[in-house]
Amino acid sequence: MSLIDQLVQAFQVLPGVGQKTSQRMVLHLLQRNRPGGSHLGVLLEKAMANVQRCQKCQNFTEENICRLCSDLNRNADLLCVVESAADVLAFEQAGGYDGFYFVLHGRLSPLDGIGPEELGLDELVARIKHLEPEELVLATNPTVEGEATAHYITQIVGDRIRKVSRIAHGVPLGSEIEYADGGTLTHALQGRRTIS
Amino acid sequence: MSLIDQLVQAFQVLPGVGQKTSQRMVLHLLQRNRPGGSHLGVLLEKAMANVQRCQKCQNFTEENICRLCSDLNRNADLLCVVESAADVLAFEQAGGYDGFYFVLHGRLSPLDGIGPEELGLDELVARIKHLEPEELVLATNPTVEGEATAHYITQIVGDRIRKVSRIAHGVPLGSEIEYADGGTLTHALQGRRTIS
Repeated sequence: MSLIDQLVQAFQVLPGVGQKTSQRMVLHLLQRNRPGGSHLGVLLEKAMANVQRCQKCQNFTEENICRLCSDLNRNADLLCVVESAADVLAFEQAGGYDGFYFVLHGRLSPLDGIGPEELGLDELVARIKHLEPEELVLATNPTVEGEATAHYITQIVGDRIRKVSRIAHGVPLGSEIEYADGGTLTHALQGRRTIS
Repeated sequence: MSLIDQLVQAFQVLPGVGQKTSQRMVLHLLQRNRPGGSHLGVLLEKAMANVQRCQKCQNFTEENICRLCSDLNRNADLLCVVESAADVLAFEQAGGYDGFYFVLHGRLSPLDGIGPEELGLDELVARIKHLEPEELVLATNPTVEGEATAHYITQIVGDRIRKVSRIAHGVPLGSEIEYADGGTLTHALQGRRTIS
């Protein structure tokens, strides 16, 4: 197999990239951006070899402690539990939250063999003991497994922490109530707030 | 900037990949397929450094002469001129053509400074002299520039070659005549063939 064919095949490890897209990517790089392609290659190798999990929050980082956990300006009263590294990025890009995170890299899912150990819940308890935050924000996904995970965490942290909260479920901004599903509308009504 | 942020940025050299897609790719590789990611990195570096143009057909290859040009089983009576390496792949995947190719890596476009030299048309003439094919198939795109390029090539090869042909323009298979544009329909009518 030629080098180009091998590269076309290798690109298909990326999510959403099939034969045609992969070909287009390879030819684009060869034709228009070889320095960019080489740079991507070098960084890929480096990242795959060196990125590990932060010792405090389990998020991906090439250092022992990630940048967010080393940031002394962040609010140590808040600790937010999320399912994935992508969720941290989403919250950071949204802005408005300045506390710390804890990344589970998954959700409780006994059928897939994912239990408390795989999610590092002992490490979460240890982190809470060490950080002593005022509030634990549970930001797992609003799915059956995400809710179960949030419930389980509430139980294991027990009264180690003063306040445990769950992010609000409701109608997302910019959407139309007409098209919202029943579960979302029920949550939106139950979670209504007095405004005057 | 952290290694992950650098990688997220580096992935955006790929066509159609923006911030969000790039993030998804990086996290997918870190979480689920590090060996695949490393392999892709190694191949990318190798390909960017070693892939050059075939001395006979100008197609991308890591050798001096590409696999297609070295294949003694191919039909030396046919030489097909295409605009890009992607076109060669498309013809090869379609099957049915077993002659040789010549890749222009572009089309005549004086406004963009792309003339006969940039396309290697001297090399095309040399290739014709050496291969002495029966027929030159012009498979540039059915666009204004592609047609102009085909016309120009017809003129420069002159009577060095017995037959110069142009691929058929017409209604593509699986499409509906109702939605075909006027130019395509005119070509489809002009190019009609007697079937009985």
